[in-house]
Formats: sequence, structure tokens, C-alpha cells
Amino acid sequence: MMFMAAKQSKKAGLPPGSLIYVSDEDMEIPESEKTVTVFAITYNESGFEEKKIESADDLKKLNPEDSSVPASTTWIHVTGLWDTEIVRVLGEKYGIDALTLEDILSMGQRPKTEAFENYIYTILKNITFDDAEKEIENNQISMITMEKTVITFAEKPCNIFDPVIKRIKKDGRIRKYGTDHLTYALIDVIVDNYFLVVEGFEEWFDEVEKRMVNHPEKESAGEINRMRTELFLFNKAVWPLINVTDSLEKSESKLIKKSTRVYFRDVEDHITRVVESVETGREIVTGIFDIYNSGISKRLNETMKVLTVISTIFIPLTFIVGVYGMNFEYMPELDWRYGYYVCLGLMLLIFVMMIAYFRKRGWF
Amino acid sequence: MMFMAAKQSKKAGLPPGSLIYVSDEDMEIPESEKTVTVFAITYNESGFEEKKIESADDLKKLNPEDSSVPASTTWIHVTGLWDTEIVRVLGEKYGIDALTLEDILSMGQRPKTEAFENYIYTILKNITFDDAEKEIENNQISMITMEKTVITFAEKPCNIFDPVIKRIKKDGRIRKYGTDHLTYALIDVIVDNYFLVVEGFEEWFDEVEKRMVNHPEKESAGEINRMRTELFLFNKAVWPLINVTDSLEKSESKLIKKSTRVYFRDVEDHITRVVESVETGREIVTGIFDIYNSGISKRLNETMKVLTVISTIFIPLTFIVGVYGMNFEYMPELDWRYGYYVCLGLMLLIFVMMIAYFRKRGWF
Amino acid sequence: MMFMAAKQSKKAGLPPGSLIYVSDEDMEIPESEKTVTVFAITYNESGFEEKKIESADDLKKLNPEDSSVPASTTWIHVTGLWDTEIVRVLGEKYGIDALTLEDILSMGQRPKTEAFENYIYTILKNITFDDAEKEIENNQISMITMEKTVITFAEKPCNIFDPVIKRIKKDGRIRKYGTDHLTYALIDVIVDNYFLVVEGFEEWFDEVEKRMVNHPEKESAGEINRMRTELFLFNKAVWPLINVTDSLEKSESKLIKKSTRVYFRDVEDHITRVVESVETGREIVTGIFDIYNSGISKRLNETMKVLTVISTIFIPLTFIVGVYGMNFEYMPELDWRYGYYVCLGLMLLIFVMMIAYFRKRGWF
Amino acid sequence: MMFMAAKQSKKAGLPPGSLIYVSDEDMEIPESEKTVTVFAITYNESGFEEKKIESADDLKKLNPEDSSVPASTTWIHVTGLWDTEIVRVLGEKYGIDALTLEDILSMGQRPKTEAFENYIYTILKNITFDDAEKEIENNQISMITMEKTVITFAEKPCNIFDPVIKRIKKDGRIRKYGTDHLTYALIDVIVDNYFLVVEGFEEWFDEVEKRMVNHPEKESAGEINRMRTELFLFNKAVWPLINVTDSLEKSESKLIKKSTRVYFRDVEDHITRVVESVETGREIVTGIFDIYNSGISKRLNETMKVLTVISTIFIPLTFIVGVYGMNFEYMPELDWRYGYYVCLGLMLLIFVMMIAYFRKRGWF
Amino acid sequence: MMFMAAKQSKKAGLPPGSLIYVSDEDMEIPESEKTVTVFAITYNESGFEEKKIESADDLKKLNPEDSSVPASTTWIHVTGLWDTEIVRVLGEKYGIDALTLEDILSMGQRPKTEAFENYIYTILKNITFDDAEKEIENNQISMITMEKTVITFAEKPCNIFDPVIKRIKKDGRIRKYGTDHLTYALIDVIVDNYFLVVEGFEEWFDEVEKRMVNHPEKESAGEINRMRTELFLFNKAVWPLINVTDSLEKSESKLIKKSTRVYFRDVEDHITRVVESVETGREIVTGIFDIYNSGISKRLNETMKVLTVISTIFIPLTFIVGVYGMNFEYMPELDWRYGYYVCLGLMLLIFVMMIAYFRKRGWF
Repeated sequence: MMFMAAKQSKKAGLPPGSLIYVSDEDMEIPESEKTVTVFAITYNESGFEEKKIESADDLKKLNPEDSSVPASTTWIHVTGLWDTEIVRVLGEKYGIDALTLEDILSMGQRPKTEAFENYIYTILKNITFDDAEKEIENNQISMITMEKTVITFAEKPCNIFDPVIKRIKKDGRIRKYGTDHLTYALIDVIVDNYFLVVEGFEEWFDEVEKRMVNHPEKESAGEINRMRTELFLFNKAVWPLINVTDSLEKSESKLIKKSTRVYFRDVEDHITRVVESVETGREIVTGIFDIYNSGISKRLNETMKVLTVISTIFIPLTFIVGVYGMNFEYMPELDWRYGYYVCLGLMLLIFVMMIAYFRKRGWF
Repeated sequence: MMFMAAKQSKKAGLPPGSLIYVSDEDMEIPESEKTVTVFAITYNESGFEEKKIESADDLKKLNPEDSSVPASTTWIHVTGLWDTEIVRVLGEKYGIDALTLEDILSMGQRPKTEAFENYIYTILKNITFDDAEKEIENNQISMITMEKTVITFAEKPCNIFDPVIKRIKKDGRIRKYGTDHLTYALIDVIVDNYFLVVEGFEEWFDEVEKRMVNHPEKESAGEINRMRTELFLFNKAVWPLINVTDSLEKSESKLIKKSTRVYFRDVEDHITRVVESVETGREIVTGIFDIYNSGISKRLNETMKVLTVISTIFIPLTFIVGVYGMNFEYMPELDWRYGYYVCLGLMLLIFVMMIAYFRKRGWF
Repeated sequence: MMFMAAKQSKKAGLPPGSLIYVSDEDMEIPESEKTVTVFAITYNESGFEEKKIESADDLKKLNPEDSSVPASTTWIHVTGLWDTEIVRVLGEKYGIDALTLEDILSMGQRPKTEAFENYIYTILKNITFDDAEKEIENNQISMITMEKTVITFAEKPCNIFDPVIKRIKKDGRIRKYGTDHLTYALIDVIVDNYFLVVEGFEEWFDEVEKRMVNHPEKESAGEINRMRTELFLFNKAVWPLINVTDSLEKSESKLIKKSTRVYFRDVEDHITRVVESVETGREIVTGIFDIYNSGISKRLNETMKVLTVISTIFIPLTFIVGVYGMNFEYMPELDWRYGYYVCLGLMLLIFVMMIAYFRKRGWF
Repeated sequence: MMFMAAKQSKKAGLPPGSLIYVSDEDMEIPESEKTVTVFAITYNESGFEEKKIESADDLKKLNPEDSSVPASTTWIHVTGLWDTEIVRVLGEKYGIDALTLEDILSMGQRPKTEAFENYIYTILKNITFDDAEKEIENNQISMITMEKTVITFAEKPCNIFDPVIKRIKKDGRIRKYGTDHLTYALIDVIVDNYFLVVEGFEEWFDEVEKRMVNHPEKESAGEINRMRTELFLFNKAVWPLINVTDSLEKSESKLIKKSTRVYFRDVEDHITRVVESVETGREIVTGIFDIYNSGISKRLNETMKVLTVISTIFIPLTFIVGVYGMNFEYMPELDWRYGYYVCLGLMLLIFVMMIAYFRKRGWF
Repeated sequence: MMFMAAKQSKKAGLPPGSLIYVSDEDMEIPESEKTVTVFAITYNESGFEEKKIESADDLKKLNPEDSSVPASTTWIHVTGLWDTEIVRVLGEKYGIDALTLEDILSMGQRPKTEAFENYIYTILKNITFDDAEKEIENNQISMITMEKTVITFAEKPCNIFDPVIKRIKKDGRIRKYGTDHLTYALIDVIVDNYFLVVEGFEEWFDEVEKRMVNHPEKESAGEINRMRTELFLFNKAVWPLINVTDSLEKSESKLIKKSTRVYFRDVEDHITRVVESVETGREIVTGIFDIYNSGISKRLNETMKVLTVISTIFIPLTFIVGVYGMNFEYMPELDWRYGYYVCLGLMLLIFVMMIAYFRKRGWF
């Protein structure tokens, strides 16, 4: 169980702003998959231009003013943060603070937004629900919103921004607005994806609930606990976003136009609903756990009833047969002609009475 | 168990303001019942006029100024949201924001109120308690309050607004006031209905409590948990209304007249009482669950006492008869004339002493 | 278990300000006891005059200026709210808002205070603890504080205000002050009575605690739960009063003189202490419930120890006697001269060792 | 269990400011110990003078200006509040409000501070931990801070203020400052004593924890519950002091000099630490209770294992010997030469296998 | 279990500002290890000078202006507080308030920051996780930030500040900034070390979780409780730091330059993440405890099933063999040729049916 966000300790004592990639999962990813891809889309109302950027040098040379779409908005998206050089170059080129660069490279940040003089820095998490492993997966997204440029960094490859790219290329309406609206659109797709995570949880919980009803004895406290923990981790990643969007909505920065603010309010509404769903989910987990525990107690009760019924019926009968198994010289019953049958009849009577007694007490 | 409000995910990545009807229960409703009905009531102090609107075209043509009751207030009520064209037409005709239209069509919104320049948008839930299924049912109501017109949208058919219609037609006093008072009257009937839901819960809980007393072993943790969950969902739909009415009471919008504010304060009082009833209900559920769990433990205790009493009495007696069932050559007691009766007497003595002992310990 | 304050639902859909008496307990009260009594005391520093008012007509004619004590303060007290006509007449005569009149007639209101232009409206609860039934009983008191007149309404007959009447008639000091001080005095006696309720709870809890120590097995989760519920209902009636007195203390209404405010602060202190006592009471109930549950587990442990000790001692012994009850042709021990005694001795040895073992493990 | 602070009810209906001594413990104190002692210390930078005051008359005659130390500060300390005449005389002489006098005489007040025009009134509790009874004891202290005089009232005799008296008489530095600093010094010794109470709790809890480890079966839920309750009562007496010292620090009264405020901040720090210790204590009690409950369950498990092992081993063996105790005419094994030994061997084998099985399952 | 921060009581009644070393652990440290070491580093942008200070006299003579690095920043670090004389001398030399000096010498302070006229006083805790003992260890650090000088006091020897010393000596960039930046750097290394503590907890919890899965019966409630307690103590030391850094960031003192504030915000971010990790840790402990308790109940269930199966199978069989062990004269079955085999067959049938029944109920 991982409960610290990242092995932050490896930076202990270093001066602030040291550019080191810090991630807990770094070792789990094979070296071959650590590819870094960068693209830049430049667009204005009338068109767009996309460039693949191969190296830090390409980045240095990048100049939107040279492009076929002048007076435009540029979005640079970096996937994979293993090449700290790219981050350094971008930081230098666009005047990004050393502490911001450090945060971009440190996984396990809390979602937050910080306004600097020339840019707004926003961190949030793209979260997916892994149906097979029944766990959520984090992908930390950093966004730098400047007057003409938006730079985004994704910790790991993901296709979360594909709908936005498509809207830029196909739909075009989004091209009418500036960097603030692009920022909104990117945050919006991330938040919309949270609903998919909620649905993942929902299916999982439904499945567990169904199993609880059919095979209560097979359920384990471990899984119920994992349900709670995963929800908790999801909540931790989501609820700080309420503050983020609230700050963006009420931001005094001139980078966020007044007309865009209502959109951030809309996103905040969505996040509030996700957070409320998580709260409902917790209520459900608590309920399942209570049912689980009651179930254990109830099954113990059932087991003990079986034992008690059997013992209560047969122990006295065994006593009776024991009596007539004694070897006393003088035991008149033993000599009776129908002694054996009387004895059997007596025992049958006791048996029937016992059964009747237990039935009356509702033990069957 | 449904814990997300609506399959919001189907809209992930779409541009804001896309008019798509989003509802979790959409599939449960047969296509034939998806009828959309619209009516418009135009009234002023001296009279009223009611129109059934059959199509989006009718809506376009609707002009309260043509009506027999000039200088009037118009209330347009749409039941059923399956025809997004009607919503679109209304939005266009009355200048409603795209995000508002999107919210109207998305089920599972949180109750909220938002003031726009030319209208106030309010979402709330009409809730009914299904006595048979023991669950609450949601019907999302959206209200657009403008200077001369109130537009309401109900997700599903319901007769919640009948008393208001009757008051407009019969009583007439309500016709003296404007759209703000109509908005109040509509919210008020919805809130008044919450008391019926509370009564539904009350009856349910009474029933369960009675069963708990009479047949504690038949109760299930599942039902108690459902009591908790339904209350939780009800609360989720109700308590944000405190903010809604508070905002309306303190609204700076000129659409809410000062004289109407005291009424919203009154509604807020009602909601506070509903929320407090829910809180009391939770306390009761917690109590029932505690009693339930104690009951399981207590019954286990009873079961074990039966087993222990029977075993403790008969196991030693069985040992004694076993002793005299041994086949040793030389066992003097066996040859005694009254050995058998002495043995029976001894066992009776032990039996009586055991019973006395258990009675003293209070096990009977 | 009643958890809604009153059958509010019977008013659903009625216009605001409808004068209907709404109470949950209405049916429990025999028709013959539904007597309405009204009196008016007019007083000034030098004297007082008391009038019994027999009908709504008497009320209409009531004119303090005609009385023998001019320039005076008048207190009208209505007991029993079954005659809505009296409330209507008072409302008309003194210019009381329709919503206020509606609240006066609706039982189950939350304690609150509302300042209107010409009066202050205060609702609170007179609560008594029924020692026999072990439950609290509510009596809703409404107060209208005007410049020259205080009108109070009590849901049911009670003698809570007797000390104040006595002070007006005998002591006289209270006659020096105006309506604000009378309001304070009335609230003060109600709050002072809460201490009696707290004492009632205290005695009840002491009794239950004593029983728990002496006869833990007779205690029931039901009673402990009722302790919690009654405390909860009491708290619900009391704690909103902190806001009420705070509002009165800080009231901007000129009806509350500055010199009276310190008294309301004093009452607020008292309520805070009542609320803290309730909190302590809850802590105690939690403790009792924990002890109760531990007690059930402990007694189960005791029962099982008895069973285990008896079984563990006698089952092996029964096995041994069974061995020598076998009918094998060739069993040398059976023919031994002292075989039987050796066998008995062996079993005694086992018995003693078992006892010693259990004693060592601390099972006795 | 006492959960109301004092039998406040005996004052119900009396006019405000009635001087009646109200205490729960009044009856527990023998009449002979109800002695009231009063002393007055007058001091200035150069010296001090102490007077024992024998009666209310002495008090009336008391005039610090007559003393050998002019322009001085006077501290009057009253121990025991059974003589309400003394309180009345002091109230009259120094112009103390009737409500304040009433509070001084009512035990069970919450700690609070109230600023009046000519004095500051502070209530707090001197608390001691009774090691033998394992309970905390309250001694209510009231302080009136005036420009030249501090009057303190202690409910019961105590030597809590001895260090301050000593510092006035010996050390002398304290004599340089005024009444505000004396107030601080008095509050400070009371708060410092709370650390002793915390240490008392600490020793108690250590003792219980040690017993839990060594003789878990002897522990009782009752004691753990008392730990919780005493902590709770202690907290109730301590935490309102944070507000008291905060109010004194930020007081707008000119009776508190600016230079003294930093001292009150220091006291507030101490109280915060006491409150945090209480919180830690609660965490520990919760932990102990959890361990206690787990212990009960675990011991039940142990008991049942013993029973199960014994039963599982001997019940089948007893069955086997029963088989060969049957009296069928034709049972070939009975006639075998070594039948008996084979049978014994078979049973030994079963016995060994059973033991091995239980060992493998880790039951030993 | 230690739950008070320090034996504060030994100072009860002393005047404020008494310089006495107060620590709970004082007795655990051998006298020989109570060495006090002091060093002073004076640096400016171009160089640095380090001095070991041997005695209080050395301290008095210390004058940074005499050093080879003029116009510089001086950092004086005191390790070990057993020599109160050193603290007194520093206090006198640099004009530190008596209350501050008292706090420096009192262990068990809460983290806090206080702005005085000529310095800022900050207390925080250096915490290490002892892997062997599984407990956290506190080292209280006090910092006095003045215009030209920073004085730090560590309760016990530790090498926490080594990275900062190294950066002053090697890296040099830090030498460009003033005392505020040094204060930041020192707080930063302390906070960075908290991540190591979090990792320590993480490893511990992982270990316990693994053991829970493999040998659930060996786990003890005691250890789980210690996990909770240690986390709680850690949290208590860490979370007040959020206020500390927030105060420093927003400090109005001119000792904190505006450019340094962003760094304190960065530290605050780190602390927030530590606090969130602690919260996650608590969630995990709660989960482990739930699993532990469910595990106990489940194992009890298993034990009882074994007992019930064995008893239910063999008790009826034993009854049957008892029947044919009776000594009645006339029992026809006994004389049957194959009576014995029929009886054995019958018992085998019952045995098989029982096994089938239990298998069907899922008890195997």
C-alpha cells in the first residue's frame, strides 16, 4: 500500500528548484517505454498547424510567429518527463520559475493552481480506473497558461486530450478563443473522465454487493477495505480541484478573461458532483462492511444453532441408552418383555418433543 | 446501487453547451411513455388563459401580448425532456445561456440557483417516496424566472404543480403577484411534498422497529442499510436547497422583489425542518442497527446457554452410566441389591443440583 | 418513533398564511381537554390588573388604555391553540403578519426569533421530563413582543409561567421594566426548567447504570437507545436557543433596550450549560452502550468457559469408561482384581489434573 | 455519574441576581468544614501588608488607603462561599453587578471572562487529580480584576495560590506590576497545575495499560469508560480557557496593560498544550478500548479452540469404543485374540493424526 | 505511553521566564552524553568563516564584525540545552525576551512562530523514525531569525543541518541571500526529512499488512494500536507547521523579504503533502484494524464449524452404538446374523449423508 505521494526524500537537502524527476512508479516502467513525445499546435480562427518536436533543440527553435497561422494561440504538449532537459529548455524559453519546474517534475503533487506574473500554473490528475486490477491510476498533468501559449506536461502517455485536439482540427469553434479557453477545455476533458472512474467504482461495488447476497461467506474484508482505500485515493486527487477551479473562476489574473469564468464555474459544478458521488460511494462501502460483519455474526449463530440442536437432542438420548447399558445385577426394566420397545418409544417421544420445542423457538 | 447521478460520461469531450438528454433511468422508461407535454398559462389580476402547446412550432408562435389577458405573467411548463428541440427553441426565444440549457437536459444535477442577467435559473428535485419499493424517486425540476415569464421543466410527468394551477384558476390571489411569487409558490409545493417523503420514511422505520421487537431474527442488515442509504440520498437532494432559498432570499437580482423575500425565508425554515428530520432519521437508523447487532450477539448467547446447560447436565451423567457399563470382573456396586436405584438417585441428585446452580446464575 | 416534527403535509399546496392548527399529538388529546384559556395582565410600576378573557369578542374589546393602570405594559397569554379564531383576532388587532400566525399554529417549529417592523416573534419549547414514561414532552411557546404588549401562546396547558405571574403580583420589581424585560423573564423561566429536564435524565441514567452493574443481563439495547434518542430530541429543542438569545442580545430592534441585553447574555450562558450537559449525557450513553456490548461478549465468554471446562473434563473420562465397556473377549485389565479401582483412580487423577490446569489458566 | 454542573433548578423562577449558594456537592461536605476565610494583601513596590478578615463588618471597614503601603495594589481572597453575606458586602463595596455576584455563588459555571465597565470578571476551575479515587476534583475560582484591587473567590479551601503569596512576600518582583499582572499570575498557577492533572491521567493510563498486557481478563470496560469520562470532564473545564485567555490578551479594557498581554498569550500556549494532551489521552483510551474488545474476542477464540480440540479428538474415539460395546451376537472382532490391542492401536493412531492436524493448522 | 509533552509541572508556580531545562527524556540520557556544542558560521557572498565556541565566555566575545567576512550573515548553532548559561548569555547579547528563552528550554512545545520587534522566533521538530523500535523520535529545534544573525538550538545532537552547512561551504549560492533565506533553508531540510519518516511508516505498515495476510492469527491489536498512536504523535508535530509557514509567508515583519515568501509557500505545500500522507496512513490503519477484527470473527467461525461438523456427525452415531450396547433381555436385532453389519452400514450411510449435507451448505 503506497500512501506517500512520491519518494520525495531523495531530494532532501537539495537547494530549491533542483530539476530531478521524482516518481514512485519510476522503477515499474521498463526503460524502453520511457519515450518522451512533444507536439506543438498553433492555431487561430482561420486555421491550425501541428508540429512534432523531436528534441530540445527543436524546441529552442520553435517560433509561432514564423508559422502559417499568425497572431495565434500555441499549445505545446509534452508526454513523459524522463528528459529533464526539455523541461529546462521550456522553462528558460518561457520564463518559468524554478520552483514551478521542480513541481512539474515531482510526481505526487496535490492539485493546485498558482498565479505568477506572466503565467498561471495548474496541476491536476488524469485518473483512470483499471477494471482488471480494480484500482485507480494516476497521471499527473501540469499546465502553464500564458498569454499566447499553453504548455502541458503529462507524466505518462495517455489519450485524454484527443477530443480537444479533434475539436481544434475539426470543429474549429474552440479556435475562436484564447489560451484561457483552451485551459478550460483541457481541464474539462480531465474532469469529464472522472465520471468514467465513478462508473468504474459503481460497477465494482455492484459486483461485490451481488456476490455478498449470493455467496456471503466468500467475501473478504480485504476487498471491502480496498474499495474504501481506492475511493479515498480518488477523492484525494479530486476534491482539491474544487479550490483550483474556484481560484481560476475568481482569479484576478488578466490571463483569464471574464467571459471564460462562467465555464470554470461549470467545471466546478461537475467536480462537486464527482465529490458527492465519492461521498455516496463511501456510504455504500460502510454499508457493505456493516452487512459483511453482521453476516459473519449471523453465520456463527447458524452454526451454533446446528450444534446446539444436535447436541440437545442426542446427548440426553445417549444418556438414556447409557443407563440401560449399565451392568447392575438387578435392573428390572431389562427383563421386561417389551422393555426395549418401551425404551425406544420413550426416546422417540423425547426426540419429537425436542424438535417441536426448537421449531416453536423458531430455530428451523 | 446507483451512486453517480447520471451517466455524465457519455458527454466526455464534447464542447460545452451540447444539447443532449442525459439520464440514468432513460432505458427503464418504455419508449411509448416518453411523451412531452407543454402548456402555457397567461394570467393577470383579472383573469387567465391556458394553452396546450403541441409542437416546437407552437412555441415559436407563442406571444403573451396577443392573449386576452394583457400585461400579464406567463408560466410555461414542459413535462418530459426527450424532445431537445423544444428546449432549444425556448432557449433561443428567451435568450437562455447554452450552459443553462445543457444543465436542464442533464439529470442528476445538484439543487442550485444561478443568477444571470435576464433570468434566474433554479434546479431542484421533486421527490416521492415509493411505499411498495421503499425507495425515493427523483424528478428533476428546472425553473427559469424572468421578468414576465416563468419556464419550468420536469424530467418526468408528475402532478406536483396541480395545487398551484388550481390556485391560479380558482383562488386568484396568487395572480396579483409577479413571476418571483410564482417561483416561490412552485418551490413551496415541492418543499411541502418533502414532508410526505419524511412521513413515508417514518412509517417504514416504525414498521421495521415493530418487526425488530417481535421477530428480531427475521430482520436483515440489508434492509437497515437500505434505510440509511435512502435517507442519505434524500438528504443529498434536500440540503443544498437551504443554500438555494438563502441565495434567493438575499438575491441582488431585481427579479426578486423585496416583498417576496420573506416567503423564501419561510421556505428555508421548512427545508431546515426537513433536514433536521433527516438527521433524526439517521439517529434512529443508527439506533436500530445497534439494536440489531446487539440482538445477534444476545441470541448467540441464548443459543450457547441452551447448549451449555444441556451439555453440563448430561455429560457428567453420561459419564456415570458409562462407569457402570464397564465390564470389570470385580465391581462391588453392580452386585448390590439396590445399586441401580442408588445410582439413579445419585444422578437425580446431580441433575437437581445442576438445575439449581444454573437457576442461581440466572440462566433460566 | 416520531421523527418529523408535525404532520406538515396536510398543508401541502395551500397558500402561505393559511390558519390551520397542525400538530402530531392532536389526536391523542381527548376533545374534552381542548379548552382554550386566555388572560391579560396589565401592569405598571404602581399596580396591576388581571382579566380573564372568555371569547374572541372579549379580545376585540380589550383596551389597556381603559384599565385602572394607565401607561402600562400588557401581557396576553393564550393557552391552547384549538380555537384559531382567537389567533386570527389577535393577529388583526395587533397587526401580526400572516406567516407569523401560521407559525404560531404549526407545532414542531424550530426555536427561532424573527424581528418584524412592529414586533419581535420568538418561538421556543417548554420541555418537561416525564419520569414514568422516561420521555420528554414538548410544549411550544410563541411570543410576540411589541412596544406595549407581549402576547404569548402555549400549545398545551402548563404552569411554567406561574413564577413570573407571582413576581408581577407580589414582588413588583419586574413591573418597573417594559415588554423586553418581560420577554426575558418568560424565556428565563423556560430555560431554568431545562435544568430540571437535565436532572431527570441524570436520575434515569444513574438508575440504568446501577442496574447495569447489578443485573447486566437484564439490560436491553432498546432502553440505551431510547436514552440516546430522548437526549437527541432534547438537544434539538434546546441548542437553536443559543442563536435565539444571541440574536436578541445583539438585536438592532429598538424593542430591546440596551440595559436588557446583558440579561439575554446571561440566559445564553444558561443554555450553553444545558447544551454542554447534553453533550456530557451523550458521552455517558456511549459509555453505557460500550459497557453493555462488552458485557454481552464477556458473558458469552463465561458461558463458553463453563461448557469447555465440563466438556474437557468429562469427554475424555467418558472415553475411558467406554473403553472398559467394550466387549472384547480378551481384555486383561477387566480380570484384574483391582482393575476397577485402578481405573477409578486413574480417572480421578485426570480429573484433578484438568482442574489444576484450568485453575492455572485462570478459568475459575 | 454527575453530568449537570449544579442543581441550578433550585433557582428556577427566581428573579435574576438572587444571591443563593448553588452547588451539587454541598451536602457531601460536613457542616463543620464549611468555614469561610478571607484575607487581604496590600502591596506596593516597597512592601506589603497582610490582614486576616474575620467578618463581613471587617470587610466594610477595609480601606487600603489607611494601610502602611499607600498607592498600592490590594488582593482580597475569599475561601468558601457558604456565607453569602460576605459576597453581598464585597459586591456593594466595589460596585459589582448582581448577575456577577449570582455567577460567583453558582458552582458549575463554564470558564469565561466578561468585561464590565469598572472590572473584568473571570471564572475558571482549579482542578486536582485524586490518585486514590481516580477522578478529578473541581474548585471553582472567580476573579474580579479592578484598577487597584483584585478579588478572588474559591469554592473550597485549597493552597493553589500559595506560590503567588510567596512571590509577593519573598521575591517581590511581582509587586512592581499592577492588578492585571496579579490576575495573570493567579491564572498562570492554576494552568500550571493542569499539567499535574495530565500527569495523574498519564500514570493512571500507564497502570491500566500494564494491567491489560499482564492480566487482560481482569480489566473491565467500566474502568476504561471512566478514563474516557474523566478526560472528557477535564477537557470541558479546560478548553473554554483558550477563549478566556484569548479574550484577555485581546481585551479592549484599559484594565489590561499592553505589556501584560504577551503573558496571557503565553498562558494560552500552555492551555493549548494541555488540550492537546487531553486529545492524545482520548486517542489512547480509544486504543485501550479497542485492545480490550479484541482481547475478549481473542480469548473466546482460545476457549473455543480448547473445546473444539478436545471434542474433535475424543468424540470419534468414544464412538469407536461404543461400537465395540455393542451387544450383537455376531461381532467377529470381539473374538479376535488381539482385537483389543488392535482397537487401542487404531485409536492411538487417530489421536496422533488429530493432534498432527491441529498442530498443522496452528491451533497449539 | 507518554502523552504529555513534558513534565511542565516542575515549573508550576515559578515566575515567568525562569530558565530551567524541562524535558521528559532527560533521565533516559546518560550524563556523559549531555555535551553541549556550539558553532558559528559567518558568511557573505565571497566567503565564510567557521568558529567552534567552547564556552559561554567565547560567546560573549563573539563579534562578526571582527571576522574576515564583513557585512555578513552569522549562523550560531547550539546543540544540547543542558547548559542554560549559554542560552542566558545569547539571550542577553541579542536581546531575546525571557519568555522566548523559557520556551527554548522547554521541550514539548508545539510548533509555532512568533514575531517580536527585533526577531522572529520559530519552534519546530526534527523527527526521525526509529526502524528497530518502530517509533518516532523528537528533536526540538528553536530558531531566532534576526537581521544579521540566525541562532538555532537543537535539543539533542543530530546531523539534520549538514546539507545546509555543505551548501554554505561548497555550493555558495545560498550565501547570496540573508537570514530569512537561511531560515527557510533550515526549515526546508527539516520538512524534507518528514518524507523519510513517512517512508518509515510506509514500510512498517507494508510489513504488518503482509504479516496479516500470511499469519493473521499472529497479529496483535497492540501493534495496530501503536501504528495509530505513532501516526497521531507524528501528525501532532507536523500539522501546526502549516500555520507556521503560512504565518512566515504572510509575515508583516520586515525580517522576511518579499522574494523569500514564495519559498515558504513551497515548504507549506510540502507540509500539506506530509499531512495528507498521514491522513492516508490513518485510513490504512483503520482498514488494517477492521480486517484484523473481521479475521478474529472469521477464525472463530472456522473453529466452530469444525466443532459442529465433528459433533453433528459423531453424536448421533454414538447414540446408535449406545442403543445396541443396552442390556435388554429381548432385543431382536442383536440376534440377527448380520445385525452388526447392518448397523455398521446404517452408520456409514448416516455418515455419508451428513458429509454431503455439510458440503452442500458449503462448510468445507
